[in-house]
Amino acid sequence: MIGTVVATRKDENLVGTKLMITQPLNMNLEPVGEPLIAVDTVGAGIGELVIFSKGTAARIAARKMDSPIDVSIVGIIDEMDVHDG
Amino acid sequence: MIGTVVATRKDENLVGTKLMITQPLNMNLEPVGEPLIAVDTVGAGIGELVIFSKGTAARIAARKMDSPIDVSIVGIIDEMDVHDG
Amino acid sequence: MIGTVVATRKDENLVGTKLMITQPLNMNLEPVGEPLIAVDTVGAGIGELVIFSKGTAARIAARKMDSPIDVSIVGIIDEMDVHDG
Amino acid sequence: MIGTVVATRKDENLVGTKLMITQPLNMNLEPVGEPLIAVDTVGAGIGELVIFSKGTAARIAARKMDSPIDVSIVGIIDEMDVHDG
Amino acid sequence: MIGTVVATRKDENLVGTKLMITQPLNMNLEPVGEPLIAVDTVGAGIGELVIFSKGTAARIAARKMDSPIDVSIVGIIDEMDVHDG
Repeated sequence: MIGTVVATRKDENLVGTKLMITQPLNMNLEPVGEPLIAVDTVGAGIGELVIFSKGTAARIAARKMDSPIDVSIVGIIDEMDVHDG
Repeated sequence: MIGTVVATRKDENLVGTKLMITQPLNMNLEPVGEPLIAVDTVGAGIGELVIFSKGTAARIAARKMDSPIDVSIVGIIDEMDVHDG
Repeated sequence: MIGTVVATRKDENLVGTKLMITQPLNMNLEPVGEPLIAVDTVGAGIGELVIFSKGTAARIAARKMDSPIDVSIVGIIDEMDVHDG
Repeated sequence: MIGTVVATRKDENLVGTKLMITQPLNMNLEPVGEPLIAVDTVGAGIGELVIFSKGTAARIAARKMDSPIDVSIVGIIDEMDVHDG
Repeated sequence: MIGTVVATRKDENLVGTKLMITQPLNMNLEPVGEPLIAVDTVGAGIGELVIFSKGTAARIAARKMDSPIDVSIVGIIDEMDVHDG
């Protein structure tokens, strides 16, 4: 989770959503691939590691099946236990 | 958002849509990955940073569920507040 | 659009479709990412720049919702007007 | 198509499916991106070039709409006619 | 399969799911692309090679069609038989 986005001109079904920029990370927490603009459904803050869902799952998370949402933040990571190999 | 596309031979359900080429960018606003041809639903202009949606979300945005649209521009970014780390 | 594919052993719902290999390009028209095998719905020819759709949109384009199609060519590009920056 | 997979512990809706590892290739037939585990619906053999479908198309190909299948092999390539540029 | 994730703040439809981090691998079992956070539906353990499904298939695997799940672990690989070329 790395930033916020302001967009006044947008689809009317996106009005009232909180948009955040999220950057996928690799296991060393380095950026990998393109950043995604996501609807925040869990009150995430900048600098937190988040879980996001894409596609239909993103609309389910936002409780807005008729909106053009395709990425949503669905959780905030408190702790990860990662093993190499 | 980097350009416009003219395609006279196309699926009849795409007739009347405005097609734009969009290039996904990384956090430094450098190109990453392949450009996408998107239907513009918000009146975007060349050089503007836009938000796009893929898949079913793109058809929802275009209000054309029976069309073969898989990417739509759904918002125009006015402002981003990005933090490293 | 870079080639044609012949596949005699295939899902019966693909019989009668015209399969083409398409290579996604970047803004300099260089290959980026993996080639995709697509159903041609618009009479594209080798060497033409095409627009393709993925997923459900591909089945909509092919008018074959019960077929295992996930990429279709839906338009042929006549002209692009691209701006850097 | 590069190999076979044995998985005794799996979703019960995958029991009885034949799982294969497939490696997407570029136009020079070199590996590109990550290998995918796919359900074989056409009797593909190791070393054959195959066509695969993703997402809902994969479940359509497998005739198992209620299974957690997201990649299926739907055809075997006999011949490709590829042109550069 | 490389680790576990704890997320106390999350979508209520994710409560009670076991979340794991999975890292896609290439044919040499080296990491490729971004790690994915997946719901484990088969009792996978850290260090095991797993099969995951994305999108609707992930919700089918989890038997939670109304949840915002977009990746699930659906099988554990016992054995792979891989051929080069």
